[in-house]
Amino acid sequence: MDHIRIISEETRYYESNEPLALELGGVLPGVRVAYRTWGTLNAAKDNVILICHALTGNADADAWWGGLFGEGRAFDETRDFIICSNVPGSCYGTTGPLSPNPATGRHYGPDFPRITIRDMVAVQHRLIRSFGIERLRLVVGASLGGMQVLEWGCMYPDMAGSLMPMGISGRHSAWCIALSEAQRQAIAADGDWNDGWYDPALQPAKGLAAARMMAMCTYRCFENFQLRFGRQVQEDGLFTAESYQRYQGKKLVGRFDANTYVTLTRAMDMHDIARGRGAYESVLGSFKMPVEILSIDSDLLYPKEEQEELTRLIPGSRILFLDEPYGHDAFLIDVDTVSRMVCEFKERSGKE
Amino acid sequence: MDHIRIISEETRYYESNEPLALELGGVLPGVRVAYRTWGTLNAAKDNVILICHALTGNADADAWWGGLFGEGRAFDETRDFIICSNVPGSCYGTTGPLSPNPATGRHYGPDFPRITIRDMVAVQHRLIRSFGIERLRLVVGASLGGMQVLEWGCMYPDMAGSLMPMGISGRHSAWCIALSEAQRQAIAADGDWNDGWYDPALQPAKGLAAARMMAMCTYRCFENFQLRFGRQVQEDGLFTAESYQRYQGKKLVGRFDANTYVTLTRAMDMHDIARGRGAYESVLGSFKMPVEILSIDSDLLYPKEEQEELTRLIPGSRILFLDEPYGHDAFLIDVDTVSRMVCEFKERSGKE
Repeated sequence: MDHIRIISEETRYYESNEPLALELGGVLPGVRVAYRTWGTLNAAKDNVILICHALTGNADADAWWGGLFGEGRAFDETRDFIICSNVPGSCYGTTGPLSPNPATGRHYGPDFPRITIRDMVAVQHRLIRSFGIERLRLVVGASLGGMQVLEWGCMYPDMAGSLMPMGISGRHSAWCIALSEAQRQAIAADGDWNDGWYDPALQPAKGLAAARMMAMCTYRCFENFQLRFGRQVQEDGLFTAESYQRYQGKKLVGRFDANTYVTLTRAMDMHDIARGRGAYESVLGSFKMPVEILSIDSDLLYPKEEQEELTRLIPGSRILFLDEPYGHDAFLIDVDTVSRMVCEFKERSGKE
Repeated sequence: MDHIRIISEETRYYESNEPLALELGGVLPGVRVAYRTWGTLNAAKDNVILICHALTGNADADAWWGGLFGEGRAFDETRDFIICSNVPGSCYGTTGPLSPNPATGRHYGPDFPRITIRDMVAVQHRLIRSFGIERLRLVVGASLGGMQVLEWGCMYPDMAGSLMPMGISGRHSAWCIALSEAQRQAIAADGDWNDGWYDPALQPAKGLAAARMMAMCTYRCFENFQLRFGRQVQEDGLFTAESYQRYQGKKLVGRFDANTYVTLTRAMDMHDIARGRGAYESVLGSFKMPVEILSIDSDLLYPKEEQEELTRLIPGSRILFLDEPYGHDAFLIDVDTVSRMVCEFKERSGKE
């Protein structure tokens, strides 16, 4: 497990030895889940908030979504019992491509099976049930996290007390799939990729960095880049915007794994809450819990038409907007607004 | 010259042996220019239209912009004398990274000097003057071509009779620079890149393909991909959107060169019509020729705010919109509308 990326000392692990049959075929003989909790589970076990993380996120929600934590804020340790677990297929402690493959004794690497958002939620469900929790007050997350939130509504409607998906659609669009593929191909172009059989200590750093740079353009937006960088040039002759890209690429390489990037972007591409369940409209029409959908005006990846459609189709749901021009990443940036929106939704949904 | 990409048999070459001092330093000892013409130069030499091509384009405008050619259309061989030349730094016959470097005897490769849009226009100017032409009735082009159109207005205002730049800004934005850099880094990630010293017959195909895939997402738009591909899956299990990306990547690799891609995207990043000329507003404010700016509503790379700004700043200029959801590439797709707009501008500007 020495390849696993650095995680908080407070991370705990849940080991499920029951085999996990995967949606697209194959079985994981068992699953290890890295998770964090904050606050105290009350006697009624009805104060649980589940946070679902995004593509390169992990269980340390207080690190990447710190602005939402605190007394009187979205995630209030004095009142809530908050859980965040790393998804399977990731590289932050939960079983994924860097984990040992019992069948071979070496790490899975590219042999890690195809997983889907539903597999992620099934693993979270095991973890939640291991606490004896039967109901989640709120399931919340953005991007890949928001996909999990919607799947909670489909897979465990009696457990998911309320849902707050952010910056998301009910099924991954063709444009997003095309972007994912371009990023995977940048990784595969790296001479160190070796069809995924690189030494985890020497990963395809340039390809993964290029994939991240491409992604960064879509996580932000035109206006955000323009306001921050314009045509400013550094002393070394690079445009500040170029230098920022190189910095972001390098930073991700230091904390993420290329096979994990491929595994999780494929899972995102497979996201379709209607797969095998009938018409998209009727799947969303069957949601009975309170749902509020956070839409990011400047989101290039999940344009607001997609959240407006979700709101039209989910009975009684509401839509909220983040209108600062940050792009998709607004959920990580405009944290005061997001925290307030989550608080208000907790109030409203608690009364229903 | 055997590395030069396939070009039309009708391509002609202009050889300028006069050294070309480049804007960013360095000198090309001479320049070879691949060009095409259509129609006949009239006695007054006042029926000339200059077409400027985009990033991966070439002198064969009748191939990539065929819908604009024909009697009664934008480029009418029965009335107009139409010229299109390949830009320096490209790989379609004009001096570029695949051309022999007289100083070494091998091809330039990554030693090809940094060039700018102004260098491209200076080379076009030599070609035009070689015909004895003193005035262009119209200079027209989109994207990298539109950058050249604007530079014609700055560098040779007395020659440029009227300008029609399309899908463009007066200076490359931070978001576009960031995208360019991500694409260059995808090329550099390829194990076959070798700092640009690859054998031109064995270029960094995977990296160049990944760069193209990234670019394709920005040449089109969310809605265009969604309408064409949705979540359709092929028999081989690939999403049609993924397969389309791979096809586009492969197609570019077969007809383009990686060092050329780097050279020309760097030139685009340097695009700023105000560089060394004073305030942006006053540079544009000095334009005296008729100018019509084509804006593409769904353009992610050059959003319409940029063309609206150009229109505000260029005295007497007008803005026209392409509103079909094709994205930046609309100028290549919605050719009937573009042709009509060019025709109407020729009419109007001819009367001024």
